[in-house]
Amino acid sequence: MRLGPILRSFPHIRPRSYPLVHRRHSSDMASVVNKTAHPFDKARFDATLNRRFFYAPAFEIYGGVAGLYDYGPPGSALQANIIDQWRKHFIIEEGMLELDTTIMTPSAVFETSGHVARFADWMVKDTKTGDVLRADHLVKNVLENRLAGDRAARGLAAAPPVEDKKRKKKAGKATTLKLDDEVVKEYETILAQLDNYTGPELGELCRKHKLTNPDTDNEVGEPQQFNLMFQSSIGPTGQHKGYLRPETAQGHFLNFNRLLDYNNGRVPFASAQIGRSFRNEISPRAGLLRVREFTMAEIEHYVDPDDKSHPRFKEVRDIAIVLLDRDVQEAGSSETKVMSVGEAVDKGIIANETLGYFIVRIYLFLVNIGINPKRLRFRQHMANEMAHYATDCWDAEIHNATGWTECVGCADRAAYDLSVHSAKTGQPLVVRQALKEPIVTEKETPEWNKKNLGKLFKKDAAVITQLVEALDEPSLLKLKGELAQGSTVVKSEDGKEFTLTPEVVTIERKVFKQSIREFTPNVIEPSFGLGRILYTLLEHSFWSRESDVERGVLSLPPVVAPTKVLIVPLSAREEFDPLVQEISAKLRKAGVFSRVDDSNTSIGKRYARNDELGTPFGLTIDFASIPNRTVTLRERDTTDQRIGSIDEVIATVTELVDGTIDWEEACQRLPAYDGVQAVAE
Amino acid sequence: MRLGPILRSFPHIRPRSYPLVHRRHSSDMASVVNKTAHPFDKARFDATLNRRFFYAPAFEIYGGVAGLYDYGPPGSALQANIIDQWRKHFIIEEGMLELDTTIMTPSAVFETSGHVARFADWMVKDTKTGDVLRADHLVKNVLENRLAGDRAARGLAAAPPVEDKKRKKKAGKATTLKLDDEVVKEYETILAQLDNYTGPELGELCRKHKLTNPDTDNEVGEPQQFNLMFQSSIGPTGQHKGYLRPETAQGHFLNFNRLLDYNNGRVPFASAQIGRSFRNEISPRAGLLRVREFTMAEIEHYVDPDDKSHPRFKEVRDIAIVLLDRDVQEAGSSETKVMSVGEAVDKGIIANETLGYFIVRIYLFLVNIGINPKRLRFRQHMANEMAHYATDCWDAEIHNATGWTECVGCADRAAYDLSVHSAKTGQPLVVRQALKEPIVTEKETPEWNKKNLGKLFKKDAAVITQLVEALDEPSLLKLKGELAQGSTVVKSEDGKEFTLTPEVVTIERKVFKQSIREFTPNVIEPSFGLGRILYTLLEHSFWSRESDVERGVLSLPPVVAPTKVLIVPLSAREEFDPLVQEISAKLRKAGVFSRVDDSNTSIGKRYARNDELGTPFGLTIDFASIPNRTVTLRERDTTDQRIGSIDEVIATVTELVDGTIDWEEACQRLPAYDGVQAVAE
Repeated sequence: MRLGPILRSFPHIRPRSYPLVHRRHSSDMASVVNKTAHPFDKARFDATLNRRFFYAPAFEIYGGVAGLYDYGPPGSALQANIIDQWRKHFIIEEGMLELDTTIMTPSAVFETSGHVARFADWMVKDTKTGDVLRADHLVKNVLENRLAGDRAARGLAAAPPVEDKKRKKKAGKATTLKLDDEVVKEYETILAQLDNYTGPELGELCRKHKLTNPDTDNEVGEPQQFNLMFQSSIGPTGQHKGYLRPETAQGHFLNFNRLLDYNNGRVPFASAQIGRSFRNEISPRAGLLRVREFTMAEIEHYVDPDDKSHPRFKEVRDIAIVLLDRDVQEAGSSETKVMSVGEAVDKGIIANETLGYFIVRIYLFLVNIGINPKRLRFRQHMANEMAHYATDCWDAEIHNATGWTECVGCADRAAYDLSVHSAKTGQPLVVRQALKEPIVTEKETPEWNKKNLGKLFKKDAAVITQLVEALDEPSLLKLKGELAQGSTVVKSEDGKEFTLTPEVVTIERKVFKQSIREFTPNVIEPSFGLGRILYTLLEHSFWSRESDVERGVLSLPPVVAPTKVLIVPLSAREEFDPLVQEISAKLRKAGVFSRVDDSNTSIGKRYARNDELGTPFGLTIDFASIPNRTVTLRERDTTDQRIGSIDEVIATVTELVDGTIDWEEACQRLPAYDGVQAVAE
Repeated sequence: MRLGPILRSFPHIRPRSYPLVHRRHSSDMASVVNKTAHPFDKARFDATLNRRFFYAPAFEIYGGVAGLYDYGPPGSALQANIIDQWRKHFIIEEGMLELDTTIMTPSAVFETSGHVARFADWMVKDTKTGDVLRADHLVKNVLENRLAGDRAARGLAAAPPVEDKKRKKKAGKATTLKLDDEVVKEYETILAQLDNYTGPELGELCRKHKLTNPDTDNEVGEPQQFNLMFQSSIGPTGQHKGYLRPETAQGHFLNFNRLLDYNNGRVPFASAQIGRSFRNEISPRAGLLRVREFTMAEIEHYVDPDDKSHPRFKEVRDIAIVLLDRDVQEAGSSETKVMSVGEAVDKGIIANETLGYFIVRIYLFLVNIGINPKRLRFRQHMANEMAHYATDCWDAEIHNATGWTECVGCADRAAYDLSVHSAKTGQPLVVRQALKEPIVTEKETPEWNKKNLGKLFKKDAAVITQLVEALDEPSLLKLKGELAQGSTVVKSEDGKEFTLTPEVVTIERKVFKQSIREFTPNVIEPSFGLGRILYTLLEHSFWSRESDVERGVLSLPPVVAPTKVLIVPLSAREEFDPLVQEISAKLRKAGVFSRVDDSNTSIGKRYARNDELGTPFGLTIDFASIPNRTVTLRERDTTDQRIGSIDEVIATVTELVDGTIDWEEACQRLPAYDGVQAVAE
């Protein structure tokens, strides 16, 4: 990812509630979505995820540490499934070379990459309490609050965007104050360009607009840089400084020569890595969206700088995506446009085909795992926001309760990284390519008779050679003509003259052939924050039924759902055990992950619990199952129930999970459950 | 894993070369193994892994950092496949609860767990150069060298065990010196008990046996403790000390209440986690066997301390394993015994069924992924070696070129961890179990008339209550009798006397019912060092053919092989493209990971390269493939080639990879390749 201002979520200028489209399966061909669903309720959502242990603050019994979270069983499984899909979608589909490099990194590497000097955020201190705040967050929060207060004063119903409860309480004080129209416009322009400001400019904004710490109303000091890398020391002597990587990228670049060799010396190719990274955030507050330790998935695609076309671009060029380009933002707006990626590349909005190809591949990955495409946009970096070496950079931003959040970055890093590491270590990090047509050049070339040269000129021989070799083509031609006539005179810088004859040197026209081209490849880097994707996916999947507002439903697509099938025996009686074991074993053999819930509560309650865990299918075993060898199959979103023989139902549910059929097709195979068996919802 | 002496490899007392059994498939039912194979050559092995980029020193172009390694494409894929098998074998098969907790940990947690005080190794400093050495490694290396020198002097052919080339050179100097028989015996006893010594004892050994730094021959100073945790600081203030976890275990324990709740309040259950851990090793030298950053897989199985039986123990009790028990080692020997786990538990050699169950499950996992069972043993910890709280602890040790190395630990940690965290935080970490039969007790109980008591005794009332409540059953009975007769007298500690009557107190026989049992579960912890397993697996899989000694073959079982099938078109000509694409797509659909090698070298060279990468099967496409739609199928270990239609071969290779058939069965389906097609080996 880029240096400097990192992973900032774009300000949520115009809060609006997006219609929640409840996707059912990745195929999205399932029966009608549940339109009676209750809208998103953040408090209930957070409580559900916590209660079901999707994730929780790490070290909770010790009071917790801001920005550190543990994933429980459903969160771990969801993460593992997202990673599995990522590996299939990128590494396997595109034949990428996977790496697993170390987190602990000696400081020399990050000195070269620029992270030691520049991987920092601007922080300000509360002048009285000494509390530390991120400068851009302070500007964003206070201005958004004032704008919300203005809207309230104008009688518009929008609530102020809030990050957490503490902030909500404090923010409440400043509301319902009408602002001048010009002030509103100025604030909106500042927010649209927030990622574009330097530290001193942020300080200037605080002074000009009297921005104080919203928790205390105290003034804040001048912005100072804080490096976001965690520092440590390697080995027993304490002499070797190390940092925890803030991204996996350097591990790719340092192995470039090995990767190139593994790929038989050819470009383009890509390396890929999934792993933990660390950023010592100044004041993490937004749950999984801003954390100090996180799992990333990064791709470094190495490409010829003279040819950034992509062989598979034609497959994606008609796919339309939502773009928020640089020019629009720099004009103080956040109007998006919908455009095919082909058109965007043709018009020069996206810099090249390879970048465009990856933007679409990122889009398809996110939509495939269940991100709502209506809440997904690609935002281009503005000039100051982009790292100085980058050619172009786009963030996949996903809309959520806190606004728009960068979840994937996609940058053209040019040749920067390989060049700086090569310059520092003296190791060439280049591609050597045999030219199909060698480049042939002819030029005049001095040919020396070394023996005569030495005999005649002794220690001056070297000076003479240097003088002649340094001559340009016309001068050599002149010399050639004079030598043809018997002799010529060359003059050294200190005025000494030497008379040369054809016995010492001749000038000949020679042919040179260059058959190898050497170049530093450019790097296109798609970089995924998996925790942010996981969080926004959960938000996009959460709703509750009209019939049971207190309980949530997580409509995760089967492909990523933590558990695919819940097996529900009517009770924990031993007589159900053989069927439970048979069905478990058959599902395991079919590669379908299932769990048994034989706890001592009603079937309806057990289903409701598993709706909250996002389990898409339930198999119920009741008394009729034993003589008839039938089970009922329940679908999570519709709560439809069908009935069939054990083997029929297992075959159907396997195809549902694989995505080869949808629920509508399943319903054609299995009759509706007619209620003869005693299953209570 | 245990505290204190950690992950130490057991000294390689009697070097012997184990027969290399080349396992072919996990089923091990394939045709005869290649008995003509050349024996293991460590130098060639290391060079092959490096050249093929299984792994390489991290930051190599910056000169590298000891103990940090990067995995390249084949190493990453092998690791991912081992993890996948682990997840299936443990998490899915046993229904464990997976976790993903943070690496960065506030210091309070490790203060409580004991790591800040005790997670340390003893180091000694070279008195002249200041070089730092691990004290136990110094003792081991020098004594092993002296014993090797003694064996050489006695005309025995054993070579000294070496850790790396530098050491080898230095070690050479001390060889061929015959020792007294008693000295040999003493050295062997020290080595057998090495993990049992304290720091001061190691210092004493250095002085007594004149052990010097083998690199310089200088004396070393007194052993000092060095804490192995990497330290850092959390947040912008620099006030909050943090450590990188040296094991994942604490992340499990701190989430115990959430896990228990997720499991509906029942034990036994297990949590499992796969993740990175860090240990700032003093002087890592043994490649992947001792590193500063590594991937672990840990299980914490929570069990009733009063019932450590395991419901599935009967399934494993007859499986025989190689044991090196505590008593044998403490007697200075390293003689192993082969015994069924049932017998070992019955005889009390292994402390309980649950520990025994996991030992067998570990054994089966290791053998299934390709570890040679003849080079695998379970070594019990000696008294001083074990953490003070542990009940019993066994290490799965795998034999390799450096000797026996601990790759999995399996400890009964008792209630230690949950107890200390609970005591520190005040949070109960207990199981509350409804008793099937409530425990009913009857006892004599004082019943007070509070009004009369207060009126009569005023401020002495509390003293009187205390005095009576503290009485035991016989005293209460005596009191009861006296009260029945009118009154009784009680006496306070300071000699004051109070006369009590039935108006103030009566003694009644009451029935008490206890329906809940509360207890802190014990923890059985299998803990896997995945890098060590990966390395020893590679060693056990490596050999070379008589016909091509320079080239290695990696006979990895298909289940973990990085690539399952290599697709080899005769050349990179375009006419082969449609078949290459068809076969790739069909294999992808069948879930079989394949790669194409259309590089510009002979088919034989391409196969040889992929033998080194451990790819078990090759599909060759040649000119006959286009009209006939046939391909040849090559098996890595035998180099046998068979022929069949594309669909037949894909179906066969899919079953081979899944392990449902072996090569012998494949040969019954597909005829031998008769050489009509032009395929050169």
